Amino acid sequence: MPDRRPPSPWDKARPARAPERSAARAPRRDAPGGGDGERPGADELRLHGLNACLAAFAARPEALRKVWLRADRMPRLKTVLAWCVQHRLGYRVVEDADLERLSGSEHHEGVCIAFRRRPEPSLDAWLATLRPGPCLALWLGGVGNPHNLGAILRSAAHFGVAGLLLDADDPLALSGSACRVAEGGAEAVPLVRLPPLAQALKALRAAGFETAATVVRGGEDLFRAALPARLVLAMGAEGEGLSTGQADALGRALCIPGSGAVESLNVSAATAVFLGEWRRRHPLPATG
Amino acid sequence: MPDRRPPSPWDKARPARAPERSAARAPRRDAPGGGDGERPGADELRLHGLNACLAAFAARPEALRKVWLRADRMPRLKTVLAWCVQHRLGYRVVEDADLERLSGSEHHEGVCIAFRRRPEPSLDAWLATLRPGPCLALWLGGVGNPHNLGAILRSAAHFGVAGLLLDADDPLALSGSACRVAEGGAEAVPLVRLPPLAQALKALRAAGFETAATVVRGGEDLFRAALPARLVLAMGAEGEGLSTGQADALGRALCIPGSGAVESLNVSAATAVFLGEWRRRHPLPATG
Repeated sequence: MPDRRPPSPWDKARPARAPERSAARAPRRDAPGGGDGERPGADELRLHGLNACLAAFAARPEALRKVWLRADRMPRLKTVLAWCVQHRLGYRVVEDADLERLSGSEHHEGVCIAFRRRPEPSLDAWLATLRPGPCLALWLGGVGNPHNLGAILRSAAHFGVAGLLLDADDPLALSGSACRVAEGGAEAVPLVRLPPLAQALKALRAAGFETAATVVRGGEDLFRAALPARLVLAMGAEGEGLSTGQADALGRALCIPGSGAVESLNVSAATAVFLGEWRRRHPLPATG
Repeated sequence: MPDRRPPSPWDKARPARAPERSAARAPRRDAPGGGDGERPGADELRLHGLNACLAAFAARPEALRKVWLRADRMPRLKTVLAWCVQHRLGYRVVEDADLERLSGSEHHEGVCIAFRRRPEPSLDAWLATLRPGPCLALWLGGVGNPHNLGAILRSAAHFGVAGLLLDADDPLALSGSACRVAEGGAEAVPLVRLPPLAQALKALRAAGFETAATVVRGGEDLFRAALPARLVLAMGAEGEGLSTGQADALGRALCIPGSGAVESLNVSAATAVFLGEWRRRHPLPATG
Protein backbone atom coordinates (compact mmCIF):
# COMPACT_ATOMS: atom_id res chain seq x y z
CA MET A 1 0.00 0.00 0.00
CA PRO A 2 1.48 3.35 -0.94
CA ASP A 3 2.55 5.91 1.59
CA ARG A 4 -0.13 8.60 1.79
CA ARG A 5 1.55 11.64 3.18
CA PRO A 6 -0.13 14.99 2.64
CA PRO A 7 0.96 16.69 -0.56
CA SER A 8 4.13 18.74 -0.56
CA PRO A 9 4.60 21.98 -2.45
CA TRP A 10 5.65 21.73 -6.09
CA ASP A 11 6.95 25.21 -5.96
CA LYS A 12 7.50 28.09 -3.73
CA ALA A 13 4.97 30.84 -3.42
CA ARG A 14 7.01 33.60 -5.01
CA PRO A 15 6.02 34.59 -8.53
CA ALA A 16 8.11 33.22 -11.41
CA ARG A 17 8.12 36.70 -12.94
CA ALA A 18 7.45 40.23 -11.89
CA PRO A 19 3.82 40.69 -10.80
CA GLU A 20 1.48 41.59 -13.59
CA ARG A 21 0.66 45.26 -13.71
CA SER A 22 -3.07 45.74 -13.66
CA ALA A 23 -4.47 47.23 -16.81
CA ALA A 24 -7.36 48.41 -14.66
CA ARG A 25 -5.00 50.81 -12.95
CA ALA A 26 -3.81 52.43 -16.16
CA PRO A 27 -4.40 56.17 -15.86
CA ARG A 28 -7.37 57.51 -17.82
CA ARG A 29 -5.89 60.81 -18.73
CA ASP A 30 -2.46 60.03 -20.20
CA ALA A 31 -3.36 58.58 -23.58
CA PRO A 32 -0.76 59.70 -26.14
CA GLY A 33 -0.52 58.51 -29.71
CA GLY A 34 -4.17 57.65 -30.08
CA GLY A 35 -4.19 55.24 -27.13
CA ASP A 36 -7.34 54.70 -25.16
CA GLY A 37 -7.01 54.67 -21.41
CA GLU A 38 -10.56 53.61 -20.61
CA ARG A 39 -10.74 51.08 -17.80
CA PRO A 40 -11.81 47.55 -18.66
CA GLY A 41 -15.17 46.59 -17.19
CA ALA A 42 -15.53 43.69 -14.76
CA ASP A 43 -16.91 41.50 -17.56
CA GLU A 44 -14.04 42.38 -19.90
CA LEU A 45 -10.67 40.70 -20.41
CA ARG A 46 -7.93 42.43 -22.33
CA LEU A 47 -5.83 39.90 -24.19
CA HIS A 48 -2.41 40.51 -25.66
CA GLY A 49 0.03 38.37 -27.59
CA LEU A 50 -0.66 37.33 -31.16
CA ASN A 51 -1.61 33.68 -30.64
CA ALA A 52 -3.80 34.42 -27.63
CA CYS A 53 -5.66 37.18 -29.51
CA LEU A 54 -6.09 35.16 -32.69
CA ALA A 55 -7.28 32.08 -30.80
CA ALA A 56 -9.88 34.10 -28.88
CA PHE A 57 -11.07 35.79 -32.06
CA ALA A 58 -11.38 32.43 -33.82
CA ALA A 59 -13.34 30.96 -30.91
CA ARG A 60 -15.52 33.91 -29.96
CA PRO A 61 -15.56 36.69 -32.54
CA GLU A 62 -18.90 37.90 -31.18
CA ALA A 63 -17.21 38.65 -27.83
CA LEU A 64 -14.73 41.11 -29.37
CA ARG A 65 -15.18 44.71 -28.20
CA LYS A 66 -12.17 46.75 -29.25
CA VAL A 67 -8.75 46.33 -30.83
CA TRP A 68 -5.53 48.26 -30.34
CA LEU A 69 -2.58 47.38 -32.54
CA ARG A 70 0.76 48.57 -33.82
CA ALA A 71 0.75 49.55 -37.50
CA ASP A 72 3.05 46.68 -38.50
CA ARG A 73 0.52 44.17 -37.13
CA MET A 74 -2.21 45.20 -39.58
CA PRO A 75 -1.43 42.53 -42.22
CA ARG A 76 -1.40 39.71 -39.65
CA LEU A 77 -4.68 40.94 -38.12
CA LYS A 78 -6.56 41.82 -41.30
CA THR A 79 -9.43 39.37 -40.67
CA VAL A 80 -9.86 40.87 -37.21
CA LEU A 81 -9.90 44.40 -38.61
CA ALA A 82 -12.36 43.40 -41.34
CA TRP A 83 -14.64 42.04 -38.61
CA CYS A 84 -14.36 45.34 -36.74
CA VAL A 85 -15.32 47.32 -39.81
CA GLN A 86 -18.20 44.99 -40.62
CA HIS A 87 -19.57 45.14 -37.07
CA ARG A 88 -18.80 48.82 -36.37
CA LEU A 89 -16.34 48.01 -33.60
CA GLY A 90 -13.47 50.32 -32.83
CA TYR A 91 -9.85 49.65 -33.62
CA ARG A 92 -6.95 52.00 -33.10
CA VAL A 93 -3.40 51.97 -34.38
CA VAL A 94 -1.20 52.88 -31.44
CA GLU A 95 2.43 52.86 -30.29
CA ASP A 96 4.29 50.32 -28.14
CA ALA A 97 3.98 52.53 -25.05
CA ASP A 98 0.19 52.62 -25.42
CA LEU A 99 0.00 48.87 -25.86
CA GLU A 100 2.12 48.36 -22.79
CA ARG A 101 -0.21 50.55 -20.77
CA LEU A 102 -3.42 49.11 -22.23
CA SER A 103 -2.38 45.47 -21.84
CA GLY A 104 -0.48 45.93 -18.60
CA SER A 105 2.44 43.97 -20.09
CA GLU A 106 5.56 44.58 -22.10
CA HIS A 107 4.98 41.25 -23.88
CA HIS A 108 2.03 42.52 -25.92
CA GLU A 109 3.56 41.57 -29.30
CA GLY A 110 1.94 44.57 -30.94
CA VAL A 111 -1.70 43.78 -30.19
CA CYS A 112 -4.24 44.14 -27.41
CA ILE A 113 -7.89 43.12 -27.82
CA ALA A 114 -10.71 43.63 -25.35
CA PHE A 115 -13.10 40.67 -25.20
CA ARG A 116 -16.17 40.04 -23.14
CA ARG A 117 -15.11 37.45 -20.53
CA ARG A 118 -16.28 33.91 -21.09
CA PRO A 119 -18.54 32.93 -18.18
CA GLU A 120 -17.12 30.15 -15.99
CA PRO A 121 -19.52 27.19 -16.11
CA SER A 122 -20.77 25.65 -12.89
CA LEU A 123 -19.68 22.08 -12.22
CA ASP A 124 -23.08 20.71 -13.18
CA ALA A 125 -23.20 22.70 -16.40
CA TRP A 126 -19.70 21.54 -17.32
CA LEU A 127 -20.44 17.89 -16.50
CA ALA A 128 -23.47 18.08 -18.79
CA THR A 129 -21.18 18.95 -21.73
CA LEU A 130 -18.95 15.88 -21.37
CA ARG A 131 -19.17 12.81 -23.56
CA PRO A 132 -18.90 9.32 -22.12
CA GLY A 133 -15.48 7.68 -22.24
CA PRO A 134 -11.98 8.82 -21.32
CA CYS A 135 -11.90 12.29 -19.80
CA LEU A 136 -9.22 14.07 -17.79
CA ALA A 137 -9.69 17.21 -15.68
CA LEU A 138 -7.21 19.16 -13.58
CA TRP A 139 -8.07 20.57 -10.18
CA LEU A 140 -5.78 23.49 -9.41
CA GLY A 141 -5.33 24.27 -5.74
CA GLY A 142 -3.42 27.49 -5.37
CA VAL A 143 -1.39 27.86 -8.57
CA GLY A 144 -0.93 31.46 -7.69
CA ASN A 145 0.72 33.14 -10.64
CA PRO A 146 -0.43 33.90 -14.16
CA HIS A 147 2.70 32.44 -15.76
CA ASN A 148 2.10 29.01 -14.24
CA LEU A 149 -1.62 29.14 -14.98
CA GLY A 150 -0.85 30.01 -18.60
CA ALA A 151 1.75 27.26 -18.94
CA ILE A 152 -0.68 24.72 -17.45
CA LEU A 153 -3.46 25.87 -19.80
CA ARG A 154 -1.15 25.43 -22.79
CA SER A 155 -0.22 21.86 -21.77
CA ALA A 156 -3.84 21.08 -20.86
CA ALA A 157 -5.01 22.21 -24.30
CA HIS A 158 -2.27 20.17 -26.01
CA PHE A 159 -3.29 17.00 -24.19
CA GLY A 160 -7.02 17.59 -24.59
CA VAL A 161 -7.89 18.17 -20.93
CA ALA A 162 -11.63 18.70 -20.52
CA GLY A 163 -11.53 21.38 -17.84
CA LEU A 164 -9.58 23.20 -15.14
CA LEU A 165 -11.45 23.02 -11.85
CA LEU A 166 -11.06 25.86 -9.35
CA ASP A 167 -12.35 26.16 -5.81
CA ALA A 168 -15.11 28.70 -5.30
CA ASP A 169 -12.85 30.89 -3.16
CA ASP A 170 -9.69 30.54 -5.29
CA PRO A 171 -8.63 34.05 -6.34
CA LEU A 172 -7.12 32.62 -9.53
CA ALA A 173 -8.80 33.86 -12.69
CA LEU A 174 -7.85 34.25 -16.30
CA SER A 175 -5.68 37.29 -16.99
CA GLY A 176 -4.18 38.70 -20.13
CA SER A 177 -0.76 37.38 -19.12
CA ALA A 178 -2.03 33.87 -18.43
CA CYS A 179 -3.75 33.82 -21.82
CA ARG A 180 -0.62 35.04 -23.60
CA VAL A 181 1.51 32.32 -22.03
CA ALA A 182 -1.21 29.76 -22.87
CA GLU A 183 -0.73 30.59 -26.59
CA GLY A 184 -4.41 30.00 -27.35
CA GLY A 185 -4.89 27.19 -24.84
CA ALA A 186 -7.21 29.30 -22.70
CA GLU A 187 -9.87 29.07 -25.43
CA ALA A 188 -9.76 25.28 -25.49
CA VAL A 189 -9.99 24.49 -21.78
CA PRO A 190 -12.84 25.89 -19.71
CA LEU A 191 -12.28 27.09 -16.14
CA VAL A 192 -14.93 25.50 -13.94
CA ARG A 193 -15.80 27.04 -10.57
CA LEU A 194 -16.48 24.31 -8.00
CA PRO A 195 -19.08 24.07 -5.24
CA PRO A 196 -17.88 23.08 -1.72
CA LEU A 197 -15.60 20.01 -1.57
CA ALA A 198 -18.11 17.34 -0.50
CA GLN A 199 -20.65 18.46 -3.06
CA ALA A 200 -18.00 18.65 -5.81
CA LEU A 201 -16.71 15.16 -5.09
CA LYS A 202 -20.21 13.72 -5.05
CA ALA A 203 -21.05 15.23 -8.43
CA LEU A 204 -17.71 14.18 -9.96
CA ARG A 205 -18.08 10.60 -8.73
CA ALA A 206 -21.65 10.44 -9.95
CA ALA A 207 -20.25 11.35 -13.39
CA GLY A 208 -17.83 8.43 -13.22
CA PHE A 209 -14.69 10.31 -12.21
CA GLU A 210 -12.05 9.03 -9.85
CA THR A 211 -9.85 11.59 -8.14
CA ALA A 212 -6.17 11.65 -7.24
CA ALA A 213 -3.90 14.19 -5.61
CA THR A 214 -0.42 14.75 -7.01
CA VAL A 215 2.47 15.01 -4.57
CA VAL A 216 6.19 15.63 -4.72
CA ARG A 217 7.11 12.41 -2.93
CA GLY A 218 5.54 9.54 -1.05
CA GLY A 219 2.74 8.83 -3.51
CA GLU A 220 2.21 5.99 -5.94
CA ASP A 221 4.70 5.99 -8.82
CA LEU A 222 2.83 7.66 -11.69
CA PHE A 223 4.43 5.35 -14.23
CA ARG A 224 3.20 2.19 -12.44
CA ALA A 225 -0.10 3.39 -11.00
CA ALA A 226 -3.51 2.63 -12.44
CA LEU A 227 -4.83 5.74 -14.21
CA PRO A 228 -8.57 5.43 -14.76
CA ALA A 229 -10.20 6.63 -17.96
CA ARG A 230 -12.19 9.32 -16.16
CA LEU A 231 -9.86 11.08 -13.78
CA VAL A 232 -9.58 14.36 -11.90
CA LEU A 233 -5.94 15.10 -11.05
CA ALA A 234 -5.46 17.65 -8.29
CA MET A 235 -2.24 19.62 -8.66
CA GLY A 236 -1.17 20.36 -5.09
CA ALA A 237 0.17 23.70 -5.84
CA GLU A 238 2.60 26.27 -4.64
CA GLY A 239 3.28 27.33 -1.10
CA GLU A 240 1.25 24.97 1.00
CA GLY A 241 -0.08 22.44 -1.50
CA LEU A 242 -3.56 21.04 -1.14
CA SER A 243 -5.02 21.14 2.33
CA THR A 244 -4.79 17.85 4.21
CA GLY A 245 -8.58 17.64 4.18
CA GLN A 246 -8.63 17.96 0.39
CA ALA A 247 -5.85 15.42 -0.10
CA ASP A 248 -7.49 12.87 2.20
CA ALA A 249 -10.82 13.33 0.46
CA LEU A 250 -9.22 12.57 -2.92
CA GLY A 251 -8.22 9.11 -1.73
CA ARG A 252 -5.03 8.58 -3.77
CA ALA A 253 -1.77 10.44 -4.28
CA LEU A 254 0.53 10.11 -7.30
CA CYS A 255 4.12 11.26 -7.66
CA ILE A 256 6.71 11.42 -10.43
CA PRO A 257 9.73 9.39 -9.33
CA GLY A 258 13.01 11.27 -9.51
CA SER A 259 16.69 11.24 -8.73
CA GLY A 260 16.43 13.44 -5.64
CA ALA A 261 18.93 15.92 -7.09
CA VAL A 262 16.25 18.61 -6.92
CA GLU A 263 13.32 18.77 -4.51
CA SER A 264 10.73 18.48 -7.26
CA LEU A 265 9.80 19.43 -10.77
CA ASN A 266 8.35 22.86 -11.43
CA VAL A 267 4.54 22.74 -11.20
CA SER A 268 4.05 23.27 -14.93
CA ALA A 269 6.65 20.65 -15.88
CA ALA A 270 5.07 18.22 -13.43
CA THR A 271 1.63 18.91 -14.87
CA ALA A 272 2.88 18.20 -18.39
CA VAL A 273 4.34 14.85 -17.27
CA PHE A 274 1.12 13.83 -15.46
CA LEU A 275 -1.02 14.81 -18.45
CA GLY A 276 1.28 13.08 -20.93
CA GLU A 277 1.25 9.82 -18.99
CA TRP A 278 -2.55 9.79 -18.70
CA ARG A 279 -2.83 10.56 -22.40
CA ARG A 280 -0.38 7.77 -23.25
CA ARG A 281 -2.75 5.32 -21.58
CA HIS A 282 -5.86 6.88 -23.13
CA PRO A 283 -4.80 8.14 -26.58
CA LEU A 284 -6.68 10.71 -28.61
CA PRO A 285 -8.35 9.22 -31.67
CA ALA A 286 -5.83 9.12 -34.54
CA THR A 287 -6.23 11.94 -37.02
CA GLY A 288 -5.22 12.09 -40.67
CA MET B 1 8.30 4.91 -42.01
CA PRO B 2 7.75 8.11 -40.13
CA ASP B 3 7.51 11.48 -41.79
CA ARG B 4 10.84 13.26 -41.39
CA ARG B 5 10.13 16.91 -41.75
CA PRO B 6 12.65 19.36 -40.36
CA PRO B 7 11.95 20.29 -36.76
CA SER B 8 9.53 23.09 -36.04
CA PRO B 9 9.96 25.67 -33.33
CA TRP B 10 8.71 24.75 -29.87
CA ASP B 11 8.53 28.35 -28.97
CA LYS B 12 8.89 31.78 -30.29
CA ALA B 13 12.15 33.61 -30.00
CA ARG B 14 11.00 36.31 -27.61
CA PRO B 15 12.12 35.92 -24.03
CA ALA B 16 9.57 34.51 -21.58
CA ARG B 17 10.51 37.27 -19.17
CA ALA B 18 12.29 40.60 -19.21
CA PRO B 19 15.94 40.20 -20.25
CA GLU B 20 18.28 39.57 -17.39
CA ARG B 21 20.12 42.63 -16.28
CA SER B 22 23.84 42.00 -16.33
CA ALA B 23 25.44 42.07 -12.91
CA ALA B 24 28.65 42.96 -14.73
CA ARG B 25 27.14 46.29 -15.60
CA ALA B 26 26.33 47.22 -12.01
CA PRO B 27 27.96 50.57 -11.25
CA ARG B 28 31.10 50.37 -9.12
CA ARG B 29 30.61 53.56 -7.25
CA ASP B 30 27.05 53.46 -5.96
CA ALA B 31 27.33 50.88 -3.17
CA PRO B 32 25.10 51.95 -0.29
CA GLY B 33 24.36 49.94 2.81
CA GLY B 34 27.59 47.95 2.79
CA GLY B 35 27.06 46.59 -0.75
CA ASP B 36 30.01 45.72 -2.93
CA GLY B 37 29.87 46.81 -6.54
CA GLU B 38 32.98 44.98 -7.73
CA ARG B 39 32.52 43.41 -11.14
CA PRO B 40 32.47 39.63 -11.37
CA GLY B 41 35.47 38.17 -13.17
CA ALA B 42 35.06 36.08 -16.32
CA ASP B 43 35.61 32.89 -14.32
CA GLU B 44 33.02 33.89 -11.71
CA LEU B 45 29.29 33.20 -11.55
CA ARG B 46 27.10 35.07 -9.10
CA LEU B 47 24.27 32.87 -7.94
CA HIS B 48 21.12 34.01 -6.21
CA GLY B 49 18.08 32.23 -4.85
CA LEU B 50 18.27 30.10 -1.74
CA ASN B 51 18.12 26.63 -3.31
CA ALA B 52 20.57 27.49 -6.08
CA CYS B 53 23.08 28.94 -3.58
CA LEU B 54 22.75 26.08 -1.10
CA ALA B 55 23.06 23.43 -3.83
CA ALA B 56 26.21 25.06 -5.23
CA PHE B 57 27.71 25.36 -1.75
CA ALA B 58 26.93 21.70 -1.01
CA ALA B 59 28.48 20.59 -4.31
CA ARG B 60 31.49 22.91 -4.49
CA PRO B 61 32.24 24.73 -1.24
CA GLU B 62 35.86 25.23 -2.34
CA ALA B 63 34.59 27.34 -5.28
CA LEU B 64 32.88 29.89 -3.00
CA ARG B 65 34.42 33.37 -3.14
CA LYS B 66 32.11 35.83 -1.44
CA VAL B 67 28.65 36.02 0.11
CA TRP B 68 26.17 38.87 0.32
CA LEU B 69 23.00 38.32 2.30
CA ARG B 70 20.10 40.04 4.00
CA ALA B 71 20.24 39.91 7.81
CA ASP B 72 17.17 37.67 8.05
CA ARG B 73 18.92 35.02 5.94
CA MET B 74 21.72 34.48 8.47
CA PRO B 75 20.06 31.53 10.29
CA ARG B 76 19.31 29.68 7.03
CA LEU B 77 22.87 30.24 5.78
CA LYS B 78 24.78 29.62 8.98
CA THR B 79 26.83 26.71 7.58
CA VAL B 80 27.84 28.91 4.64
CA LEU B 81 28.84 31.75 6.98
CA ALA B 82 30.78 29.34 9.22
CA TRP B 83 32.67 28.18 6.13
CA CYS B 84 33.45 31.80 5.25
CA VAL B 85 34.83 32.48 8.73
CA GLN B 86 36.87 29.28 8.71
CA HIS B 87 38.37 30.00 5.28
CA ARG B 88 38.73 33.77 5.69
CA LEU B 89 36.27 34.52 2.92
CA GLY B 90 34.24 37.71 2.95
CA TYR B 91 30.56 37.95 3.68
CA ARG B 92 28.50 41.11 3.95
CA VAL B 93 25.06 41.76 5.31
CA VAL B 94 23.33 44.06 2.83
CA GLU B 95 19.93 45.44 1.87
CA ASP B 96 17.51 44.27 -0.82
CA ALA B 97 18.57 47.04 -3.18
CA ASP B 98 22.21 45.93 -2.97
CA LEU B 99 21.26 42.31 -3.60
CA GLU B 100 19.21 43.33 -6.60
CA ARG B 101 22.19 45.21 -8.03
CA LEU B 102 24.77 42.54 -7.18
CA SER B 103 22.73 39.63 -8.51
CA GLY B 104 21.18 41.50 -11.42
CA SER B 105 17.75 40.17 -10.39
CA GLU B 106 14.86 41.10 -8.16
CA HIS B 107 14.36 37.38 -7.41
CA HIS B 108 17.46 37.10 -5.21
CA GLU B 109 15.55 35.73 -2.19
CA GLY B 110 17.92 37.53 0.17
CA VAL B 111 21.19 35.96 -0.91
CA CYS B 112 23.86 36.31 -3.60
CA ILE B 113 27.02 34.19 -3.63
CA ALA B 114 29.98 34.50 -5.99
CA PHE B 115 31.38 31.13 -7.06
CA ARG B 116 34.22 30.21 -9.35
CA ARG B 117 32.56 28.90 -12.51
CA ARG B 118 32.62 25.16 -13.02
CA PRO B 119 34.60 24.39 -16.18
CA GLU B 120 32.51 22.88 -19.01
CA PRO B 121 33.93 19.42 -19.80
CA SER B 122 34.80 18.53 -23.38
CA LEU B 123 32.72 15.79 -24.98
CA ASP B 124 35.54 13.25 -24.59
CA ALA B 125 36.10 14.14 -20.94
CA TRP B 126 32.36 13.87 -20.24
CA LEU B 127 32.02 10.53 -22.07
CA ALA B 128 34.87 9.18 -19.95
CA THR B 129 32.82 9.84 -16.79
CA LEU B 130 29.79 7.79 -17.90
CA ARG B 131 28.99 4.32 -16.65
CA PRO B 132 27.76 1.60 -18.99
CA GLY B 133 24.00 1.09 -19.21
CA PRO B 134 21.04 3.44 -19.61
CA CYS B 135 22.07 7.06 -20.10
CA LEU B 136 20.13 10.05 -21.41
CA ALA B 137 21.60 13.34 -22.58
CA LEU B 138 19.91 16.46 -23.95
CA TRP B 139 21.30 18.43 -26.86
CA LEU B 140 20.02 21.99 -26.70
CA GLY B 141 19.97 23.86 -29.98
CA GLY B 142 19.14 27.48 -29.34
CA VAL B 143 17.18 27.52 -26.08
CA GLY B 144 17.86 31.19 -25.90
CA ASN B 145 16.63 32.40 -22.55
CA PRO B 146 17.78 31.78 -19.01
CA HIS B 147 14.29 30.92 -17.75
CA ASN B 148 13.91 28.03 -20.19
CA LEU B 149 17.48 26.85 -19.59
CA GLY B 150 16.84 26.86 -15.85
CA ALA B 151 13.52 25.03 -16.19
CA ILE B 152 15.15 22.39 -18.42
CA LEU B 153 18.05 21.96 -15.97
CA ARG B 154 15.58 21.41 -13.12
CA SER B 155 13.68 18.72 -15.04
CA ALA B 156 16.95 17.18 -16.29
CA ALA B 157 18.24 16.91 -12.73
CA HIS B 158 14.96 15.39 -11.54
CA PHE B 159 15.07 12.69 -14.21
CA GLY B 160 18.79 12.02 -13.81
CA VAL B 161 19.94 13.30 -17.21
CA ALA B 162 23.69 12.79 -17.61
CA GLY B 163 24.51 16.01 -19.43
CA LEU B 164 23.30 18.99 -21.43
CA LEU B 165 25.18 19.20 -24.72
CA LEU B 166 25.77 22.60 -26.31
CA ASP B 167 27.25 23.48 -29.68
CA ALA B 168 30.66 25.12 -29.56
CA ASP B 169 29.24 28.39 -30.91
CA ASP B 170 26.04 28.41 -28.83
CA PRO B 171 26.01 31.63 -26.81
CA LEU B 172 23.99 29.90 -24.09
CA ALA B 173 25.83 29.65 -20.78
CA LEU B 174 24.87 29.30 -17.17
CA SER B 175 23.67 32.51 -15.58
CA GLY B 176 22.52 33.37 -12.10
CA SER B 177 18.90 33.46 -13.30
CA ALA B 178 19.12 30.07 -15.00
CA CYS B 179 20.60 28.58 -11.83
CA ARG B 180 17.89 30.13 -9.64
CA VAL B 181 15.12 28.71 -11.82
CA ALA B 182 16.92 25.33 -11.84
CA GLU B 183 16.55 25.20 -8.01
CA GLY B 184 19.84 23.35 -7.59
CA GLY B 185 19.59 21.35 -10.82
CA ALA B 186 22.53 23.18 -12.38
CA GLU B 187 24.87 21.43 -9.94
CA ALA B 188 23.64 17.97 -10.93
CA VAL B 189 23.77 18.21 -14.72
CA PRO B 190 27.02 19.23 -16.44
CA LEU B 191 26.98 21.47 -19.51
CA VAL B 192 29.16 19.85 -22.17
CA ARG B 193 30.57 21.93 -25.01
CA LEU B 194 30.55 19.95 -28.28
CA PRO B 195 33.08 19.73 -31.10
CA PRO B 196 31.78 20.16 -34.70
CA LEU B 197 28.71 18.07 -35.61
CA ALA B 198 30.34 15.18 -37.48
CA GLN B 199 32.99 14.74 -34.81
CA ALA B 200 30.40 14.93 -32.00
CA LEU B 201 28.16 12.33 -33.62
CA LYS B 202 31.09 9.98 -34.21
CA ALA B 203 32.17 10.17 -30.57
CA LEU B 204 28.60 9.78 -29.25
CA ARG B 205 27.94 6.74 -31.45
CA ALA B 206 31.26 5.17 -30.46
CA ALA B 207 30.04 5.49 -26.85
CA GLY B 208 26.85 3.58 -27.73
CA PHE B 209 24.47 6.53 -28.04
CA GLU B 210 21.68 6.80 -30.54
CA THR B 211 20.41 10.26 -31.40
CA ALA B 212 16.95 11.68 -32.09
CA ALA B 213 15.61 15.13 -32.85
CA THR B 214 12.40 16.30 -31.20
CA VAL B 215 9.83 18.06 -33.34
CA VAL B 216 6.45 19.70 -32.87
CA ARG B 217 4.70 17.52 -35.43
CA GLY B 218 5.42 14.96 -38.12
CA GLY B 219 7.78 12.80 -36.07
CA GLU B 220 7.34 9.36 -34.54
CA ASP B 221 4.83 9.30 -31.67
CA LEU B 222 6.99 9.47 -28.53
CA PHE B 223 4.67 7.11 -26.68
CA ARG B 224 4.98 4.37 -29.32
CA ALA B 225 8.54 4.89 -30.52
CA ALA B 226 11.51 2.78 -29.49
CA LEU B 227 13.61 4.73 -26.98
CA PRO B 228 17.07 3.17 -26.70
CA ALA B 229 18.84 2.90 -23.37
CA ARG B 230 21.62 5.26 -24.43
CA LEU B 231 20.03 8.23 -26.13
CA VAL B 232 20.82 11.83 -27.00
CA LEU B 233 17.61 13.83 -27.46
CA ALA B 234 18.02 17.08 -29.37
CA MET B 235 15.53 19.73 -28.34
CA GLY B 236 14.88 21.76 -31.50
CA ALA B 237 14.55 24.98 -29.78
CA GLU B 238 13.03 28.38 -30.12
CA GLY B 239 12.81 30.52 -33.19
CA GLU B 240 14.21 28.37 -35.95
CA GLY B 241 14.62 24.97 -34.30
CA LEU B 242 17.54 22.75 -35.19
CA SER B 243 19.14 23.37 -38.56
CA THR B 244 18.02 20.95 -41.28
CA GLY B 245 21.58 19.62 -41.45
CA GLN B 246 21.53 18.83 -37.75
CA ALA B 247 18.09 17.20 -37.88
CA ASP B 248 19.02 15.02 -40.87
CA ALA B 249 22.24 13.97 -39.20
CA LEU B 250 20.34 12.81 -36.11
CA GLY B 251 18.40 10.29 -38.16
CA ARG B 252 15.10 10.19 -36.23
CA ALA B 253 12.53 12.70 -35.08
CA LEU B 254 10.11 12.25 -32.18
CA CYS B 255 7.01 14.26 -31.36
CA ILE B 256 4.46 14.42 -28.54
CA PRO B 257 1.02 13.76 -30.02
CA GLY B 258 -1.54 16.40 -29.19
CA SER B 259 -5.04 17.68 -29.78
CA GLY B 260 -4.01 20.47 -32.15
CA ALA B 261 -5.73 23.07 -29.96
CA VAL B 262 -2.35 24.79 -29.50
CA GLU B 263 0.61 24.73 -31.90
CA SER B 264 2.86 22.94 -29.43
CA LEU B 265 3.88 22.55 -25.85
CA ASN B 266 6.25 25.06 -24.32
CA VAL B 267 9.85 23.89 -24.74
CA SER B 268 10.33 23.18 -21.04
CA ALA B 269 7.02 21.30 -20.74
CA ALA B 270 7.92 19.28 -23.85
CA THR B 271 11.34 18.49 -22.41
CA ALA B 272 9.78 17.24 -19.18
CA VAL B 273 7.44 14.93 -21.13
CA PHE B 274 10.29 13.54 -23.28
CA LEU B 275 12.49 12.96 -20.24
CA GLY B 276 9.67 11.38 -18.24
CA GLU B 277 8.81 8.94 -21.01
CA TRP B 278 12.45 7.86 -21.46
CA ARG B 279 12.79 7.44 -17.69
CA ARG B 280 9.57 5.39 -17.55
CA ARG B 281 11.18 2.91 -19.94
CA HIS B 282 14.54 2.98 -18.14
CA PRO B 283 13.76 3.50 -14.45
CA LEU B 284 16.23 4.71 -11.88
CA PRO B 285 17.26 1.99 -9.43
CA ALA B 286 14.72 1.85 -6.59
CA THR B 287 15.88 3.60 -3.43
CA GLY B 288 14.86 3.02 0.16
